[in-house]
Amino acid sequence: MAKEPLLLTPGPLTTSSATKQAMQRDWGSRDAAFIELTARLRRRLTALARAEAEHVCVPLPGSGTSAVEAMLGTMLSRDGRTLVLVNGAYGRRIGEILKLMERPFELIESAENLPLDAETAARHLDADSRLSDVVMVHCETTSGVLNPLEDIADAVARRGKRLLVDAMSSFGAIPIDARQIAFEGLATSANKCLEGVPGMGFVLARRARLEQCAGHSQSLSLDLHAQWRGFENNGQWRFTPPTQVLAALDSALDQLAAEGGIGGRFARYWENCHTLVSGMRALGFETYVADESQAPIIVTFHMLQDPAFEFDAFYDALAQHGYLIYPGKLTDGPSFRIGCIGDIRATDMENLLGVIGAILKDKGVHRMGRGA
Amino acid sequence: MAKEPLLLTPGPLTTSSATKQAMQRDWGSRDAAFIELTARLRRRLTALARAEAEHVCVPLPGSGTSAVEAMLGTMLSRDGRTLVLVNGAYGRRIGEILKLMERPFELIESAENLPLDAETAARHLDADSRLSDVVMVHCETTSGVLNPLEDIADAVARRGKRLLVDAMSSFGAIPIDARQIAFEGLATSANKCLEGVPGMGFVLARRARLEQCAGHSQSLSLDLHAQWRGFENNGQWRFTPPTQVLAALDSALDQLAAEGGIGGRFARYWENCHTLVSGMRALGFETYVADESQAPIIVTFHMLQDPAFEFDAFYDALAQHGYLIYPGKLTDGPSFRIGCIGDIRATDMENLLGVIGAILKDKGVHRMGRGA
Repeated sequence: MAKEPLLLTPGPLTTSSATKQAMQRDWGSRDAAFIELTARLRRRLTALARAEAEHVCVPLPGSGTSAVEAMLGTMLSRDGRTLVLVNGAYGRRIGEILKLMERPFELIESAENLPLDAETAARHLDADSRLSDVVMVHCETTSGVLNPLEDIADAVARRGKRLLVDAMSSFGAIPIDARQIAFEGLATSANKCLEGVPGMGFVLARRARLEQCAGHSQSLSLDLHAQWRGFENNGQWRFTPPTQVLAALDSALDQLAAEGGIGGRFARYWENCHTLVSGMRALGFETYVADESQAPIIVTFHMLQDPAFEFDAFYDALAQHGYLIYPGKLTDGPSFRIGCIGDIRATDMENLLGVIGAILKDKGVHRMGRGA
Repeated sequence: MAKEPLLLTPGPLTTSSATKQAMQRDWGSRDAAFIELTARLRRRLTALARAEAEHVCVPLPGSGTSAVEAMLGTMLSRDGRTLVLVNGAYGRRIGEILKLMERPFELIESAENLPLDAETAARHLDADSRLSDVVMVHCETTSGVLNPLEDIADAVARRGKRLLVDAMSSFGAIPIDARQIAFEGLATSANKCLEGVPGMGFVLARRARLEQCAGHSQSLSLDLHAQWRGFENNGQWRFTPPTQVLAALDSALDQLAAEGGIGGRFARYWENCHTLVSGMRALGFETYVADESQAPIIVTFHMLQDPAFEFDAFYDALAQHGYLIYPGKLTDGPSFRIGCIGDIRATDMENLLGVIGAILKDKGVHRMGRGA
């Protein structure tokens, strides 16, 4: 059993030792060195989406959900009307946030194993002229499905509406080019495909839109406009930043660049995912999402129907061998998930598959597949 | 010049190497080991305030301000009326938060160099029967003044009202005993006197009150009730926790215990503060707060009036020598602040004083004191 387990989850992830090593100092949060670190991170994160021309990066302490909430509460007008496209728990969460904030919205929900459909979104926009904004999740971590960001962005832009994106689990691994994809805001987190540690999210916001958003937020700490003005005024965070988390992300971005940027990272994750899925299929498992819609981020597998297969025991046995996988979150059937992201390689997946095979054999799981 | 400066600020602080070393691993946030870490931290933090009988600890990712906002947004009823006692920027911030949330409140502001007055608070409560809750800051970091928590808590409790406390910069160093001091909620942060790293706050909430607070929050991520229910249900965080920040705090609490708990920490900070103030007075500086109201947390000094004394140059010279101090935040005159908290000792203060003396001499500051 490895002392420190490999995290095959949607994050927090296994990070490199260089990333963790970057946390071995303290920073004065109002000192020049930290102001410089913040400015560098904001520049680098904007550049990753090729968004330097029209967007600004606004980091926030907290979870990724806080960053999504800050984006919604600030960038949606109080009197606008929002179309929320949902095919999983993270899309539904956007609806929950808007309901608590009492912002008018309409939510359309489609199957969790299929990508969102740009034409459906377009029909809704055409049917209700009050709709001003659209919100979607790029990679739905619930299932691992990749939604068609470019198609939906086109449909939204052609109708003169605004798009906000939850790119929590895609940013850093799936290319997003702001020169090709029109978005007003895009929220993500340090601890997903960027391979930093958890504690910070950020939003790439179109500057011209953000300037109009003063006074929208009902929250002080989640006011993205005020947070941005703070950075513009003196380079400082309004409220205490997670200094070590920033330093870790700065190091993680060095490593991303060394890997060949987003292209290089995508290739590694794709290989992780391909190795995992082929091997799991050979062991009798079935994926929930069809290959053409699967993001190389996290894969949902159906439970085996063999009575000898019991998920908690399977999880514990894998944990004993140093692998932490993730429970399922689907609404339509028992499943579990295995992540492909973090500081892991195809050889790690091969080792995992060997262990899974041995566990199944040990537990006497004979009838493979989920069919009855 | 020290490579890593000593942070003489109100936080983030200089932390011990053991605390930073605790961040050298990754945690699966839904795994048993991390659930156990979370439970242990919640227990230990509750015990520090001797609040095991009636309170629960609810940690949240983010800045201390987020934790204060979560406490206010959840523990105040939407139709209650709150009295906010203010003698500095952090008290005023509570008013800003309530205004954004559109919660009814009345704010009374008193001099920044003096503690809040329990009798004034009592008079206001007697004059307006609609007031249901009182909010105060324990140690106002703006000035360093310690507010009379026990007296105010008594006045509030005798009138059957509820008290919420921002104990951001006092918790861990100034004893707070929930068996003696009646509070419904108390918010603080990992990176002040507990000497953890920044990225997490928490609220000690009276269970019987918190149970009544479902549906109060207008925010999903800052809903303290839902956050608490999450921990009670399965021991897990609702949204991604800053795993390394938790591990660092757990180590920091070991070190607090080894130092003799809050009493031992208070004694060390008191000695830091005493050494600093005596030495600064010998150099001609005057404190803003009278000794009897000064918390041993952070000390505000008036600027020297000598034209040869220029704060930015003074700050930079100290930074060159490896000491980061803090600008002032008073509304009534130029000042600066020096913190007494973190992994620092009286010998560090003596070294600092030697450096300050040399800088003043070097800059030709002759006329000591602030008098005209």
